[in-house]
Amino acid sequence: MDPDLLLADLAAGKTAALARAISVVENGRPGFERLLAGVHRSLGHARRIGITGPPGAGKSTLVERLVLAYRAAGLRVGVIAIDPTSPFTGGALLGDRIRMESVALDEGVYIRSMASRGSLGGLATSTREVSDLLDAAGFDRIVVETVGVGQAEVDVSRMADTTVLVLVPESGDGIQTLKSGVMEAADIFAVNKADRPGADTLRHEIEVTLGIRRGNAYRNVPAHHGYRASRRAGAREEAEGARGADGRWEHAVVLTVAARGEGNDELMAALDRHHEWLARSGTLEQRRRRRMLERTREVVDRAARRWMWDESHADRLIAARLDEVVDGRLSPYDVATEVLDGLKQGARL
Amino acid sequence: MDPDLLLADLAAGKTAALARAISVVENGRPGFERLLAGVHRSLGHARRIGITGPPGAGKSTLVERLVLAYRAAGLRVGVIAIDPTSPFTGGALLGDRIRMESVALDEGVYIRSMASRGSLGGLATSTREVSDLLDAAGFDRIVVETVGVGQAEVDVSRMADTTVLVLVPESGDGIQTLKSGVMEAADIFAVNKADRPGADTLRHEIEVTLGIRRGNAYRNVPAHHGYRASRRAGAREEAEGARGADGRWEHAVVLTVAARGEGNDELMAALDRHHEWLARSGTLEQRRRRRMLERTREVVDRAARRWMWDESHADRLIAARLDEVVDGRLSPYDVATEVLDGLKQGARL
Repeated sequence: MDPDLLLADLAAGKTAALARAISVVENGRPGFERLLAGVHRSLGHARRIGITGPPGAGKSTLVERLVLAYRAAGLRVGVIAIDPTSPFTGGALLGDRIRMESVALDEGVYIRSMASRGSLGGLATSTREVSDLLDAAGFDRIVVETVGVGQAEVDVSRMADTTVLVLVPESGDGIQTLKSGVMEAADIFAVNKADRPGADTLRHEIEVTLGIRRGNAYRNVPAHHGYRASRRAGAREEAEGARGADGRWEHAVVLTVAARGEGNDELMAALDRHHEWLARSGTLEQRRRRRMLERTREVVDRAARRWMWDESHADRLIAARLDEVVDGRLSPYDVATEVLDGLKQGARL
Repeated sequence: MDPDLLLADLAAGKTAALARAISVVENGRPGFERLLAGVHRSLGHARRIGITGPPGAGKSTLVERLVLAYRAAGLRVGVIAIDPTSPFTGGALLGDRIRMESVALDEGVYIRSMASRGSLGGLATSTREVSDLLDAAGFDRIVVETVGVGQAEVDVSRMADTTVLVLVPESGDGIQTLKSGVMEAADIFAVNKADRPGADTLRHEIEVTLGIRRGNAYRNVPAHHGYRASRRAGAREEAEGARGADGRWEHAVVLTVAARGEGNDELMAALDRHHEWLARSGTLEQRRRRRMLERTREVVDRAARRWMWDESHADRLIAARLDEVVDGRLSPYDVATEVLDGLKQGARL
């Protein structure tokens, strides 16, 4: 691979170049860092949107609706779908991908699945790097969809400008079961499948929870309405999120039925307004700066670890000492000391 | 802290020493590696059991039943409960802890909650290290309970001799929603709240799934029975898991109602038989050896990263370069190169 040639093709918007660049970056093949360094100065055009939530919440359908709406507005959209790798869960995911085919043949849409297997540097890093390539290739919106609720989702949300948490009524224990940090990381809540009973309860639960966490900052939010009420003209303001007097984003709770496209306009509007707020309040700049700091730390950490593992021949040393570690003559901490001593010595030569 | 004094107190079984040692290790305070190196040779007595499953599956109640049964058999038990850190979910967890109080005052039981916040080296590493301290302090069984289903659970299962996956009927999408690797990591399945409708269906689903994954290794397993049927004398063999002709562990599916203690004897028996199988087949030795390899890699990686971040003053350099990274003059990859160059140079001095 010639990184410079690939960079030129990428900037020219060639889809084949994008696919090749993503493959190089995802697999950490030689030259991937040069490629990413090369696109670095052309970043910042795309809005990055994270869509997360528990399995079965209808995230893929919601994403498809968003993509269709962005296309109708003439925008190019990149989608990164983060999949579990089990062949077992492959069935359901294949279903999602087939549905996504309504947009998959559109030149203005690029869809990439990424496996959630562990990788050196982690999924969050790879996702950010693939997002950078999409950004550099001129896409206007980058939507990252993650399956499940957990640390991976929190990590992904930290790479997005705006994070949407998709929940459904009747999901058993409701938001009580959400892992720490998941609600806090969301800017917009989509209560999907809102034609089911329990949508109002869930919405109320979200608002109360947010209110409690923010010291009842929600006292100024108008009393919540049912799904049908929220579709009335005039309810749109509320669905798009209230803003506090101090300029904080007070979250938006939007009711959707993605399978029928209901609530999609409201969700789009909430996304636009959140972006406006991000830009106006200076939060966008802050978030991107914080992200760049985290990114740089990740890149440094990964580069240093790779150097360390290669340079120290640590694997060889660990293998040679394993018998002694297993039978208790050496501890893992003794081996670590030996590796570090070798590293310092080796670097001195 | 004097590590040698603490080690002596730990070996003497002093509870206060254990609590102090755990705190030192969990927070990575000075001397924690010397402490862990010191206990390394006394490891291997305790059986390590992981209990995992989705929120609301009744894991804590099941753990409490296990603890009571082990105590009745005269065994000392350490429990590590891995908690989400959100104050929001704290309510439900507090409930669990209050229930656990029936055993919390027992001298032969040690319960420790660990936060699932990110830490250098990760939760799995810390959990293993705290397990080592409990092992060295002479506990016979170490039960690690994790909330939620995800990568953290898969990681934790890799630290256990035996992993129990707790599922409940009517949990919506059933095992379809389990993340990749979670089912594969389990040795024993507990279908808890088995007095609810759907217990048989879930059991069947588990068996079919395991059968599919193992090339229908389950063809020799007798037709599954209902919950009541499985409680008959004679059904116990099946509940404890069938073994294939080739000596593989063919998993056990046990029906339990932890709130009433039903199925607890069967679960205990399945745990014992799994341990016997582990020892007899040589798998225990293999697993512990593999674990020791992973552990050593983790310890080396953590030590090297700490050294790298301290030695290179990377944080200072990143902060100094951040403006240039944000405005695109430098990329994170350029900064990484600079950090590494400095590291190599510094080590040479």
